[in-house]
Amino acid sequence: MPPIITLTTDFGLRDPFVGVMKGVILAICPAARLVDLTHEIAPQDVLGGALALESSVRFFPPGTIHLAVVDPGVGSARRGLALRARDYFFVGPDNGLFTAALGERGWSAVSLEHPAYRLAPVSPTFHGRDIFAPAAAHLASGVALERLGPPVKDPVRLTWPGCRAEGSGWVGEVIGADRFGNLITSVTAPRLGGTSGWIVEIGGRSLGSLAGCYADGPEGAPAALIGSSGRLEVFVRNGSARALLGGERGMPVRVRRS
Amino acid sequence: MPPIITLTTDFGLRDPFVGVMKGVILAICPAARLVDLTHEIAPQDVLGGALALESSVRFFPPGTIHLAVVDPGVGSARRGLALRARDYFFVGPDNGLFTAALGERGWSAVSLEHPAYRLAPVSPTFHGRDIFAPAAAHLASGVALERLGPPVKDPVRLTWPGCRAEGSGWVGEVIGADRFGNLITSVTAPRLGGTSGWIVEIGGRSLGSLAGCYADGPEGAPAALIGSSGRLEVFVRNGSARALLGGERGMPVRVRRS
Amino acid sequence: MPPIITLTTDFGLRDPFVGVMKGVILAICPAARLVDLTHEIAPQDVLGGALALESSVRFFPPGTIHLAVVDPGVGSARRGLALRARDYFFVGPDNGLFTAALGERGWSAVSLEHPAYRLAPVSPTFHGRDIFAPAAAHLASGVALERLGPPVKDPVRLTWPGCRAEGSGWVGEVIGADRFGNLITSVTAPRLGGTSGWIVEIGGRSLGSLAGCYADGPEGAPAALIGSSGRLEVFVRNGSARALLGGERGMPVRVRRS
Repeated sequence: MPPIITLTTDFGLRDPFVGVMKGVILAICPAARLVDLTHEIAPQDVLGGALALESSVRFFPPGTIHLAVVDPGVGSARRGLALRARDYFFVGPDNGLFTAALGERGWSAVSLEHPAYRLAPVSPTFHGRDIFAPAAAHLASGVALERLGPPVKDPVRLTWPGCRAEGSGWVGEVIGADRFGNLITSVTAPRLGGTSGWIVEIGGRSLGSLAGCYADGPEGAPAALIGSSGRLEVFVRNGSARALLGGERGMPVRVRRS
Repeated sequence: MPPIITLTTDFGLRDPFVGVMKGVILAICPAARLVDLTHEIAPQDVLGGALALESSVRFFPPGTIHLAVVDPGVGSARRGLALRARDYFFVGPDNGLFTAALGERGWSAVSLEHPAYRLAPVSPTFHGRDIFAPAAAHLASGVALERLGPPVKDPVRLTWPGCRAEGSGWVGEVIGADRFGNLITSVTAPRLGGTSGWIVEIGGRSLGSLAGCYADGPEGAPAALIGSSGRLEVFVRNGSARALLGGERGMPVRVRRS
Repeated sequence: MPPIITLTTDFGLRDPFVGVMKGVILAICPAARLVDLTHEIAPQDVLGGALALESSVRFFPPGTIHLAVVDPGVGSARRGLALRARDYFFVGPDNGLFTAALGERGWSAVSLEHPAYRLAPVSPTFHGRDIFAPAAAHLASGVALERLGPPVKDPVRLTWPGCRAEGSGWVGEVIGADRFGNLITSVTAPRLGGTSGWIVEIGGRSLGSLAGCYADGPEGAPAALIGSSGRLEVFVRNGSARALLGGERGMPVRVRRS
């Protein structure tokens, strides 16, 4: 089975940056299979990148290497990281992108310092090309993680958006919006223990009880359901909850007993 | 020859949905070759997806599996479909996306109900990941169509945009605009039987006779030609017919004898 | 090692044009590895395409075939070109897209006229699909360049944006902006011979001396550095120089001794 490398960046697709990273990878590991997760993380939105990874990586086969570059600190003193956590490898800047994977037991990480596994010279502005793509490609070629550099025991972790108890319910927050304008929240299915018996509130509106699927929602009014990543979502059937409610990351959402 | 799976959705590229579908496919069929047709179908525009498939699929080798997800009814009672028509397979919701392929003789289709060929549990909001991607991957791995579920004899078909005779000419309609602002219409080359002797009218303007290529059109004024998919197109050389004429889907276009 | 074909176009990703080209390629050369460089070159911006290629191709392994289609003259008398220059092949319209590669010694080129290596019929509006994709795929399959058509000795070359001496410094120009709003210029690192001792001026502002990386710039004010493609770039840390300075292609930039 050829090794899979996924790519997640804030580089967009206008510039050839992503294509160049792929060229670097294929020059080192011609057998690698390359899969784009997304390149439309908002510029420098490290948490957005971390959330995209958290919802996606488990759908890839064991051994997949997840390469992610959202890197406002490129060229500064921040470390580069290769990480093995459970079934996967992760490669990218040490800025919190891999916070979710660091919640697994038994991870190990190294700082990407060995010059043999970098391009030369290393540009101070494009470590995706010169450090991270080569490291991912060498891992895909079978180089052991430990050879890439010295161990890292204290990788950076982000404060993860969660939810807190309020009375018999929960208060969480909007963590982002998807292409359809659905507002994704920090309230997860395990908190609710089931989809019946809850009322959702956001932006001063009550959305009533949870719908089963998008087609169950009313036209033109917001409703809520548990989305495909196991998170509470606010949606408008055939419309955009983001446009209707103006929800941005951090907007509170409440779930209370009906 | 490794099996090819094409992907057509309205998911956009901002979210990792498409990447996740590819992870699911590669976990089931590591040898699959994945080709994006487009993920920028307008949200829930089933006809737009059907038209994109109709113009594209014939350029792929026989045996290609075309996976398409434009699915406003996800999670409701609508069926999931796998379809074999002439040289290709199609996988997606049963909502008309495959109308063109259903015009071929001797198609056969099944409803994607066999749980062995789905992920478990199936999310009510992301059948692309949990039902359609696995079905396409199992087909690519050699599973017979008939094993995926019970036969379907009455798949949903859309009303297909065509054109009607008017005097010695034809009346059709705009079916979409491409990236360059060219307006694509429902008038097809076989209706005209040749490109000379016709005058094109749209939005109260006469565009004169058909040009041979974009470079033959005047600068700043609209003209028409037969485009690469065999459809009459209205274009502005080095400009946008959509911006100039405001054409939306359904706008009438007339072709009459000169 | 399977042959790599990169794709660079102004087709965007909304329409299935790029996917169709990939279908054509895989039907001819199933083993080809396909890598998108970018499809977001501004419509008909041949220089933009040429600059994207110039900054990218060297990161791919020798033997890579770079297919590029930015083609305002499609269907007119302009030739189609296949070109071998140093380690790479290039395929696309003969309109200057490959100007940088033509600066290499010992290139050879042919006009894509042999009907055996085209689709039939050839549409006058989509040579990417009918001429260029097949030519690239046949090269990837091992067909010799010379078999594709007669030699071309005078391929079209663009006037390349450079810089000129002014006193003890240089005057160049903005050649484009990247996704982050960084303004890329025609002033290259070899002109400066080193990063210290220079002051950068643009739009009537002095940006001071060169920064080492983006994180070294002040917040909210523009600064300059040598970017990853070896070009002087104007940036705003965690912001957009393009938005702040309104820089478009052709805007002068000066570098003078401090």
